[in-house]
Amino acid sequence: MTLFMDVHRGMTGITADQLMAAHQADLAIEAEEHVHFKQAWADPESGTVYCLSEAPSRDAVQRIHERAGHMADEIHAVPLSV
Amino acid sequence: MTLFMDVHRGMTGITADQLMAAHQADLAIEAEEHVHFKQAWADPESGTVYCLSEAPSRDAVQRIHERAGHMADEIHAVPLSV
Repeated sequence: MTLFMDVHRGMTGITADQLMAAHQADLAIEAEEHVHFKQAWADPESGTVYCLSEAPSRDAVQRIHERAGHMADEIHAVPLSV
Repeated sequence: MTLFMDVHRGMTGITADQLMAAHQADLAIEAEEHVHFKQAWADPESGTVYCLSEAPSRDAVQRIHERAGHMADEIHAVPLSV
């Protein structure tokens, strides 16, 4: 399993409730692709959302996000962390 | 204090040791701007590094990164997180 950071853009004005709902939508189906979304951070002003996940592949991360209704604009494996 | 996510690009080939050294360079001076760098993640393949910090302002984050020798390409306040 690898860590991934993905980025969503265009989420200007996102609220805490909307972020939570989107995260819950991912959590509800993530096991089907052996993905786990660990954390997410949002900047409502620029509309940027970052999600940190553990997953077998970038495609698995995207499949969950797509089925949950919010495809990522960028997904990077982040094998290094401190 | 606010959470910030900043992004560095062009770090292709960064190693675990280099990520640790860069993070330590931030930690060594962060208190002077009341910033704390909490975590960082790197993708050596695309050369992207993400840093999560707690800070009084975006400028404070950038001043520490600049003095440590690695200015960020993007810095977003991320007041929402799950």
